[in-house]
Amino acid sequence: MTVPVPGMMAGNAPLAIICGGGSLPGAVATQVSDSGRRVVLFAVRGWAEPAVVSAFPHHWVDLGRYGAFHRLMEAEGCRDVVFIGTILRPSLRQIRFDWPTLRELPRIVRAFKGGDDHMLSSFSSILAEDGYRIVGAHEVAPDILVGEGTFGRCEPSGRDRTDIALALDLLHAISPFDVGQACVTADRHVLAIEAAEGTDGVLERLVALRESGRICVPRGVGVLVKAPKAEQNQRFDLPTIGPQTIAGVARAGLAGLAVAAGATIIAEPQKVIAEADAAGIFVIGVRAPVAAAA
Amino acid sequence: MTVPVPGMMAGNAPLAIICGGGSLPGAVATQVSDSGRRVVLFAVRGWAEPAVVSAFPHHWVDLGRYGAFHRLMEAEGCRDVVFIGTILRPSLRQIRFDWPTLRELPRIVRAFKGGDDHMLSSFSSILAEDGYRIVGAHEVAPDILVGEGTFGRCEPSGRDRTDIALALDLLHAISPFDVGQACVTADRHVLAIEAAEGTDGVLERLVALRESGRICVPRGVGVLVKAPKAEQNQRFDLPTIGPQTIAGVARAGLAGLAVAAGATIIAEPQKVIAEADAAGIFVIGVRAPVAAAA
Repeated sequence: MTVPVPGMMAGNAPLAIICGGGSLPGAVATQVSDSGRRVVLFAVRGWAEPAVVSAFPHHWVDLGRYGAFHRLMEAEGCRDVVFIGTILRPSLRQIRFDWPTLRELPRIVRAFKGGDDHMLSSFSSILAEDGYRIVGAHEVAPDILVGEGTFGRCEPSGRDRTDIALALDLLHAISPFDVGQACVTADRHVLAIEAAEGTDGVLERLVALRESGRICVPRGVGVLVKAPKAEQNQRFDLPTIGPQTIAGVARAGLAGLAVAAGATIIAEPQKVIAEADAAGIFVIGVRAPVAAAA
Repeated sequence: MTVPVPGMMAGNAPLAIICGGGSLPGAVATQVSDSGRRVVLFAVRGWAEPAVVSAFPHHWVDLGRYGAFHRLMEAEGCRDVVFIGTILRPSLRQIRFDWPTLRELPRIVRAFKGGDDHMLSSFSSILAEDGYRIVGAHEVAPDILVGEGTFGRCEPSGRDRTDIALALDLLHAISPFDVGQACVTADRHVLAIEAAEGTDGVLERLVALRESGRICVPRGVGVLVKAPKAEQNQRFDLPTIGPQTIAGVARAGLAGLAVAAGATIIAEPQKVIAEADAAGIFVIGVRAPVAAAA
């Protein structure tokens, strides 16, 4: 009688990890490998970082070359696919298409209209039609999700908690619009709402607004809050935080960072905690109304 | 028998115009003067522009010096007050208070918490308690409001109208949060939502996001949409557009600008039309769900 080994489902086929930018693909690959399952990384040229993917079996792939990707998937015997890391919305003109991709072009063009969810969902349905199964990074590497409660030694004050609640309500209200997943509130005032600029862009803007005198809340007041959209496909597009988020929050002069517990990915958690403690800012996982709806 | 002269209500008392920055205070003062009513401008030091206020009887006043303002109001015999022009949310520390203001300090401090509506409403209630009547700029100078339909010769396309509808829905959703009054949508995608940075800040950000490749919609696609908040006090805080808005929309590479008809102030309309036509962008006043709720 064979005992099932965790991570050995799907007939021991290796897990395909499509890798965008950042360190997170490496963290997921390490966790999955450590659980005993083989991984094959598909590093997206222009986004994935060579230093991150080189530690694992990997292939470089190009956006718009689905045919080549499909042949590699078959050669490796992969059935399950994880999609992880940042891929900024590319321009259609930046992509050189191969023939199998061109056959899918009407669907791909539709994917480039509308919001990010739409683009990812379309890509996902193309994979599903070819018999692949999309799995969430948090399903194969559960430790990458933020839990409830504070990380490190700083705690949010009562005022911070009021700002967090306001921000969660705002994110919930804009959730149907397939827009950013972050906003900044300070002393019951909304300072910034994320859209195409991304979270780092929001934090840089706060630094500039403070320097120009456009916002006057003192340093150490205000929170960055991130939560997934209600309709967000949690399989491949959860909000993510890491050490660079902490550095941005500190530069922006905020008190801390709150994220939806159970629905936010954390990269390099030990480094996040050390840098948050050093900067004197709190990091907390909270129950988000938005996450509950997802 | 005396025939009532338009603009001569309130016993022919001069209209007090509290002037922030920009050219709009001058436009309002001209319209009111032309209607036969005397005006006295109270130019807020640090915000009002000397070239704008110098053409009219005026006094320079300081934030935090309500006592001095109150004495001038009584000396001039003013009862009605219009509040117009930009005053960026000041820091409490930037303000040197006089005694009558210090007596009101608890209320003023509360006014500095929460959003802009709250701050303006608190100031308004202090004026009301002293027997002054706050009137909207559009009540004394109705020509400054945008009407329904297009200005100039460019018309929005079907795609633009879809983007306008999406943006109006989004502004309606964030309306309860006392936040910005503008957003940018392009090809059914939300590119930017205004908060503390203001509309000019949003448009500058789009230029930078386009240069960095972060947004890829072609030039000539997308709209800037402005609408008042549902709870907005239309007496002193309506969204405003002017020639600099047109210049910003053109630099951001958008197709045009849509604003809530009957609830948006337009500064220098002839120049707005000339510059929009020269840049090939449309300007349209639309019925906004947000405005209807106000």
